[in-house]
Amino acid sequence: MSKEITPRAEDYSQWYIDLVRKAGLADYSAVKGCMVIKPYGFGIWENMRDQLDKMFKDTGHVNAYFPLFIPKSFLSKEAAHIEGFAKECAVVTHYRLKNADDGSGLIVDPDAKLEEELIVRPTSETIIWSTYKDWIQSYRDLPLLINQWANVVRWEMRTRLFLRTTEFLWQEGHTAHATREEAIDETRKMLDVYETFAQEWMALPVIKGVKTANERFAGAEDTYCIEALMQDGKALQAGTSHFLGQNFAKAFDVQFTTKEGTLEHVWASSWGVSTRLMGALVMAHSDDEGLVIPPKLASTQVVIVPIPKPLPELMEVADTIANELRAKGIRVKIDNDDHNRPGFKFAEYEKLGIPVRLGLGARDLANGTIEVARRDTREKSSVPVEGIAQHIALLLEDIQTAMFNRAQAYRDQHITRVNTWEEFVSTLDDKAGFVSAHWDGTPETEDLIKEETKATIRCIPLNNPLEAGVCIKTGKPSTQRVLFARAY
Amino acid sequence: MSKEITPRAEDYSQWYIDLVRKAGLADYSAVKGCMVIKPYGFGIWENMRDQLDKMFKDTGHVNAYFPLFIPKSFLSKEAAHIEGFAKECAVVTHYRLKNADDGSGLIVDPDAKLEEELIVRPTSETIIWSTYKDWIQSYRDLPLLINQWANVVRWEMRTRLFLRTTEFLWQEGHTAHATREEAIDETRKMLDVYETFAQEWMALPVIKGVKTANERFAGAEDTYCIEALMQDGKALQAGTSHFLGQNFAKAFDVQFTTKEGTLEHVWASSWGVSTRLMGALVMAHSDDEGLVIPPKLASTQVVIVPIPKPLPELMEVADTIANELRAKGIRVKIDNDDHNRPGFKFAEYEKLGIPVRLGLGARDLANGTIEVARRDTREKSSVPVEGIAQHIALLLEDIQTAMFNRAQAYRDQHITRVNTWEEFVSTLDDKAGFVSAHWDGTPETEDLIKEETKATIRCIPLNNPLEAGVCIKTGKPSTQRVLFARAY
Repeated sequence: MSKEITPRAEDYSQWYIDLVRKAGLADYSAVKGCMVIKPYGFGIWENMRDQLDKMFKDTGHVNAYFPLFIPKSFLSKEAAHIEGFAKECAVVTHYRLKNADDGSGLIVDPDAKLEEELIVRPTSETIIWSTYKDWIQSYRDLPLLINQWANVVRWEMRTRLFLRTTEFLWQEGHTAHATREEAIDETRKMLDVYETFAQEWMALPVIKGVKTANERFAGAEDTYCIEALMQDGKALQAGTSHFLGQNFAKAFDVQFTTKEGTLEHVWASSWGVSTRLMGALVMAHSDDEGLVIPPKLASTQVVIVPIPKPLPELMEVADTIANELRAKGIRVKIDNDDHNRPGFKFAEYEKLGIPVRLGLGARDLANGTIEVARRDTREKSSVPVEGIAQHIALLLEDIQTAMFNRAQAYRDQHITRVNTWEEFVSTLDDKAGFVSAHWDGTPETEDLIKEETKATIRCIPLNNPLEAGVCIKTGKPSTQRVLFARAY
Repeated sequence: MSKEITPRAEDYSQWYIDLVRKAGLADYSAVKGCMVIKPYGFGIWENMRDQLDKMFKDTGHVNAYFPLFIPKSFLSKEAAHIEGFAKECAVVTHYRLKNADDGSGLIVDPDAKLEEELIVRPTSETIIWSTYKDWIQSYRDLPLLINQWANVVRWEMRTRLFLRTTEFLWQEGHTAHATREEAIDETRKMLDVYETFAQEWMALPVIKGVKTANERFAGAEDTYCIEALMQDGKALQAGTSHFLGQNFAKAFDVQFTTKEGTLEHVWASSWGVSTRLMGALVMAHSDDEGLVIPPKLASTQVVIVPIPKPLPELMEVADTIANELRAKGIRVKIDNDDHNRPGFKFAEYEKLGIPVRLGLGARDLANGTIEVARRDTREKSSVPVEGIAQHIALLLEDIQTAMFNRAQAYRDQHITRVNTWEEFVSTLDDKAGFVSAHWDGTPETEDLIKEETKATIRCIPLNNPLEAGVCIKTGKPSTQRVLFARAY
């Protein structure tokens, strides 16, 4: 067990922060609530971003870029939106500093006050729909399928690296459609893209569902989500896709001429995932030794460590093997450090979560074998040098699948059906995870449950079977179970 | 000539703005000074970014991400830096809005005033060097070779799309080294990377040089630059690379233990290019019909237009040809629009600057030929269908080279050596371009020349030959010529 990292059993929260910082993913910055994403962490985020970007483009989307700043008045244009986003935000009030007359240093120049304050975007619906007004006149201009990769700011009092920071990186898709059906189809299609990405790339099983009114995006008619479970049994919302109806089109007066010549408001979707996914990745798979990164997202998939040190004859073999692996598209690093000992290096690479480690010792090589260590199970085996590339290629696939299966088994064991309030509370406290329970469908009951237990309705799963029952809290009739959990 | 686009000869400035807007590169936004980068423009920027990113990584750099906000006090820590950057910037003073008590709408909450104002980054030296203090202890931690892709904000009163906007996108490299020599080597190496990118990818000839003290980056010991010439004879600074000495290490107290056990301040470089390059790309190559995009940066390199319209038999041939081209890695689009006529489409694709257009007519095909139109020269030729992919692959290379050669010939014709003040002024007024002239080496004379002519010293070219002469303005002795120009 790594001495730098607090064990999960001792303090899960500290374990997470230790991992993120000590494995070089991110760190706090000099600016309260803002993080620095360090090179190792950013490399993983780049892999996530590149794959998502490809999936967006494969589904017909293009990227664009809209201003960082939003005029204050824009936030007021959509009634629900203002309540959700206008409050905790960074407000630019001035556009100049000057040296104080008394020589005390830099001060805000009172003569450079903005006529209208600018808000650093917490999300971009308003600035984008104010632009779409100029871009959309006719049904020929639709659909508009645009995505933006950007930084956003939501002022947070309690922050946690990646999971909740004042500034974070994300993508936000903003699409415009001629019909309600098409906008809903888009909303659902992008939810499917997120599900595929989470499951196939992050090895993270997710439940697709729809949010209750309480948890809906401010300005949406419906918010769809993917919900994942972390190793401490808490849920994490990993991505959302919103059907916005005509709300923003009406707020910004975006109308189009239909084929039939009538004038109608445009239908919209928006959808996003953020650097929060980095937090989910860490919390879903890692252990007390460090990170466990799924092979598909690992910047380095295989590290080759010469034992006991980078002797010329070992480095020659390392180069040959590395080239064979690279020819199969595998991302390899050869450790040529002459300073630290193998045991120290092994611990370091385990901390970084590199999926496969090859130990290259003279004695093994004389026998035509290499030591192969997989990070997820920490199993070691002796494998013939002959055919090593093919072996490793299959092993990486195995690891990716095993990580998903392990996370899915844990998740499935942590969905508990309960029928009474007592069971509900004790499950949350003793077992955690998702709790599947009947609810009377009112926001008031949802609020009450949240107040008493800190559990929220994570989602109403898609294709949820109808089932008559009674609400665990009020005893009123219910038509279906919903998924509750304590959440990040 | 496109009716939407003002001819260059009539109004160069308006020609540029028309092009940028009408070809769908960018547009003004609802926020003063900020632009929207539209999908077509963003696609070209993505190609530039991806190539630059690859070149940075190939030279050993990694990406990271630092906060958008900079505490006000940080800007004051480096004496020269503050003068250059602390003035025209976006200042965040509050972190909350609230509904006014009188019901008049959203107002800034006076209770949510920040203790210390935050500046939206105009450049990131200060926040990054405050972080490097935690990352660098020993010579083993060096060099640190980090790049960041980010948005930055510099409050601008007079803006022009891409060339000067309040918010823009850029990359900023920030490296840390153990010795002065190594930091200077890095500064020069990245200047070479920029030169290669500009010349080989943008088809933009550039002159490498060093800035005078007047034009130096605020906080640098030396600023290197690449300078390009636009079609109106004005210069444009396309990229800069700064040797920062130990200035920021001293300002933020970043020291390291050397191999010998002594404690020393770290040496630094920083370097950047921005969406300004998009403006350079447009102004260097385009004509009165529209954009001319170099093949290597074009999102679509070849468009296939069935004539007179997308008839099934033509579309079948189009698909076959497109697949042959794609097999060679060529980016192809087939026009399947059934609404507009070929003449309209041709004009549209010329406006977009797509390097090659293939006209697919039934009569030509019966003869086994296709009409090939190249955008840069607007030449058309009839080419056998047989072997078309190879022909187009070579043609795209030809176009890339021809665009560079044309721009270089223009640039070379517009470097004028002058020896008197009269020649200097008349060259600037009548011919424009770079003017190579003797200067007495003082900032005062440089300021005086700028005041009287609006021309600045763009750079002292690298490897400039020494040559005795007298300053065109003061008649004082000079040891070398420098390059003056009016500039963007």
